[in-house]
Amino acid sequence: MKDRDSMPEFRKDPVIGRWVIIAAERAERPSDFGKAEYQVNRGFCPFCEGNEQSTPPEILAFRKSGTAANTPGWKLRVVPNKFPALQIEGDLNRRGIGIYDQMNGIGAHEVIIETPTHGQTLIDLSPPQFEDVLLSFQLRMADLKKDTRFLYVIAFKNHGRAAGVSLEHSHSQLIALPIIPKRVAEEIRGADNHFRMKERCIFCDIIRQELETDVRIIEQNDSFIAISPFASRFPFEIWLLPKKHESHFEQISRENLTALSKILRNLLLRMNKVLDEPPYNFLIHTSPFNEEKKLSYHWHIEIIPKLSRVAGFEWGTGFYINPTSPEQATQFLKEVVLEQKAAEILPVDSP
Amino acid sequence: MKDRDSMPEFRKDPVIGRWVIIAAERAERPSDFGKAEYQVNRGFCPFCEGNEQSTPPEILAFRKSGTAANTPGWKLRVVPNKFPALQIEGDLNRRGIGIYDQMNGIGAHEVIIETPTHGQTLIDLSPPQFEDVLLSFQLRMADLKKDTRFLYVIAFKNHGRAAGVSLEHSHSQLIALPIIPKRVAEEIRGADNHFRMKERCIFCDIIRQELETDVRIIEQNDSFIAISPFASRFPFEIWLLPKKHESHFEQISRENLTALSKILRNLLLRMNKVLDEPPYNFLIHTSPFNEEKKLSYHWHIEIIPKLSRVAGFEWGTGFYINPTSPEQATQFLKEVVLEQKAAEILPVDSP
Repeated sequence: MKDRDSMPEFRKDPVIGRWVIIAAERAERPSDFGKAEYQVNRGFCPFCEGNEQSTPPEILAFRKSGTAANTPGWKLRVVPNKFPALQIEGDLNRRGIGIYDQMNGIGAHEVIIETPTHGQTLIDLSPPQFEDVLLSFQLRMADLKKDTRFLYVIAFKNHGRAAGVSLEHSHSQLIALPIIPKRVAEEIRGADNHFRMKERCIFCDIIRQELETDVRIIEQNDSFIAISPFASRFPFEIWLLPKKHESHFEQISRENLTALSKILRNLLLRMNKVLDEPPYNFLIHTSPFNEEKKLSYHWHIEIIPKLSRVAGFEWGTGFYINPTSPEQATQFLKEVVLEQKAAEILPVDSP
Repeated sequence: MKDRDSMPEFRKDPVIGRWVIIAAERAERPSDFGKAEYQVNRGFCPFCEGNEQSTPPEILAFRKSGTAANTPGWKLRVVPNKFPALQIEGDLNRRGIGIYDQMNGIGAHEVIIETPTHGQTLIDLSPPQFEDVLLSFQLRMADLKKDTRFLYVIAFKNHGRAAGVSLEHSHSQLIALPIIPKRVAEEIRGADNHFRMKERCIFCDIIRQELETDVRIIEQNDSFIAISPFASRFPFEIWLLPKKHESHFEQISRENLTALSKILRNLLLRMNKVLDEPPYNFLIHTSPFNEEKKLSYHWHIEIIPKLSRVAGFEWGTGFYINPTSPEQATQFLKEVVLEQKAAEILPVDSP
């Protein structure tokens, strides 16, 4: 495993203003840098039931009634990341170094262990277990919101080594930040501009147009719609949005959480079928903590299968060439016949 | 190989305003999408000497005097990409579809075949051959600038499959665009803002500060400086800049081209030594064609080794966690002792 050389820090690119976390790892040789976490299948798994002492103490768990914290008997656990990119204690201490800006790497980095069973993937979970993962996102976001140092929480899932997974045991992550990530800030700026001109939410406008043309809708139910975005950067990129305007994911009703869970699970099943179980990432884009009921911004989930055609070139230009039209992708994903999954696993108490 | 389903098109993300190329490929099964180009080592190589008829006719070549175009006897060839992401003929035809914006996928997509010898990598080329590659970028950019439909040219090199290489034979690429890529546009906006406030180029300011502190300088000569940027997104990211303000790469003097070639070659050698011959991308950020002698923007080359720790998560947030501090990276890259390379290969006439 790795130690930290020093406290993580945020540094701001002076040209484009993007904050980056520099979280220096100690490594034996320079070629080991960045490889430290990529060790799967090493026999011992700190996320398995029975190994609760191998993680920091749990922050939240859904467990059988009567079982004690940090012991077996759980369905889902949320624990601090043992090797966090950010440090929970301390102050930001914003400062300048000549033309550069810097602050301490303060934030929270939590891991959602989605199942006690090693080898189960998110899609293998029963619908109630799947919903528990989203519920844990909601509960942790609502809690982290109370810490006034934080402005934003990103909840995300990496699946498969090519999508950035470090430990095989199925998990997702939350990072609470004192800043708004660049891509989200850009969306908010774009949405604010649209609102200023039209007094309408741009995502609501997109949903309206997609419902009218119906060429990029993959699936919908009463509350949610899943589309292939018009200007998809990646083949089979998917956006999943609430149909009615909602700005903050953590304010979702329990009824809508169930509906969201169903459609998200279906989307992953569709993707698995069409693309032969690809590695993927999904993440929640929501409104910053410091604004309540934001009229211009609409939370949503972005799902990106990580297919083989990915050139680092895109990072250097922000310029994407997508070899699959969103309409083609929609067609393939829509056509999938969803079978009922096998009986539920792990019939333990609900949280 | 692949055919096009339809004409490529530019589509604009309505929220954040990024243009994306949708260049739909035909594929047998959806899981083949995006994989079509990744076929290396298939025996026949269209870029090898003697196979000139397998590429579209050459646009530029450095050849032995007396040899005819599209026949053997060349050192370097520039040809149109046989399967271009963009189409050279036609008009943009900008149009709206409801809230969406779209235009035809007009542009140029060229391939620089850097050597007639299969298996040689860029770093195996002799210094004059290496310089020829940069010279070909300059000549092609200057030529493409004459086409008033184009606003920008990106010159870039992918090395290694993980960095997006489709054909093994060493080559780089040029894409001429009717738009400015998002990341470059952001840099220009940031640099313009700085200039408005300070009446100084921000890159010149960065160079001045880096020269003073000397903790992130990897290598320099009279004309160029290579640094690990203060807010590096990736471990061992490198920026290479002319020390004196220059806005457009294509205006570089021949003398400076030689100096640039030397330092870029050294940087790749350093990276190879420190990181065990990693896959990498480099690309040139230059000023748009429609502005002459831009005071606020400073052309430069960005080099990004593609190490294993890459999560698609970064795409969804624009948020980067870098496990190697730029100061550490500088130390490792600086320490490399550069040996003289073996005798030059292919002593054919200079262009």
